[in-house]
Amino acid sequence: MRSVFVFNEENNLKVLVYITLKSSVLDPQGKAIEKTLADIGFTGVEEVRQGKYIELEISENNSEKAKSKAEEMCQKLLANTVIENYRIDIGS
Amino acid sequence: MRSVFVFNEENNLKVLVYITLKSSVLDPQGKAIEKTLADIGFTGVEEVRQGKYIELEISENNSEKAKSKAEEMCQKLLANTVIENYRIDIGS
Repeated sequence: MRSVFVFNEENNLKVLVYITLKSSVLDPQGKAIEKTLADIGFTGVEEVRQGKYIELEISENNSEKAKSKAEEMCQKLLANTVIENYRIDIGS
Repeated sequence: MRSVFVFNEENNLKVLVYITLKSSVLDPQGKAIEKTLADIGFTGVEEVRQGKYIELEISENNSEKAKSKAEEMCQKLLANTVIENYRIDIGS
């Protein structure tokens, strides 16, 4: 009888993508939050900007490759590069 | 004649807030992104979750105090703690 060991390596990398409006673009959501924070008593809060935060897993174990794949996703789908910037972090 | 020097110190701390849906909560936006990524040719992408990312400046120079203020903001306004988790980073 032979024993077969399956080496079940997890090959996924977690990718974190932060998408923010460019600073020249008006952010009405951010302004609404800023005003509401002031209304409920939080003083001294400025420059509120709301963006998107996307987590995903890529079946890739090379973090450079995962990053360039995520960059392509941002360019093609996740971000509107006319008005938005994006930043990519690779987790584990 | 006396010269008056105004020490114009910047007392603001930048606060980064990440708001994510709890893992037990369905995320239709994330699912839509996952499906669209597959449709346009990105294979091996899983577990896509979309959250919010909020940047703000607090007029505070103590990062512990800024963090606890931001925590209160999350509890009271920024996050829906029934279905969302939040994470706070203090920048500079």
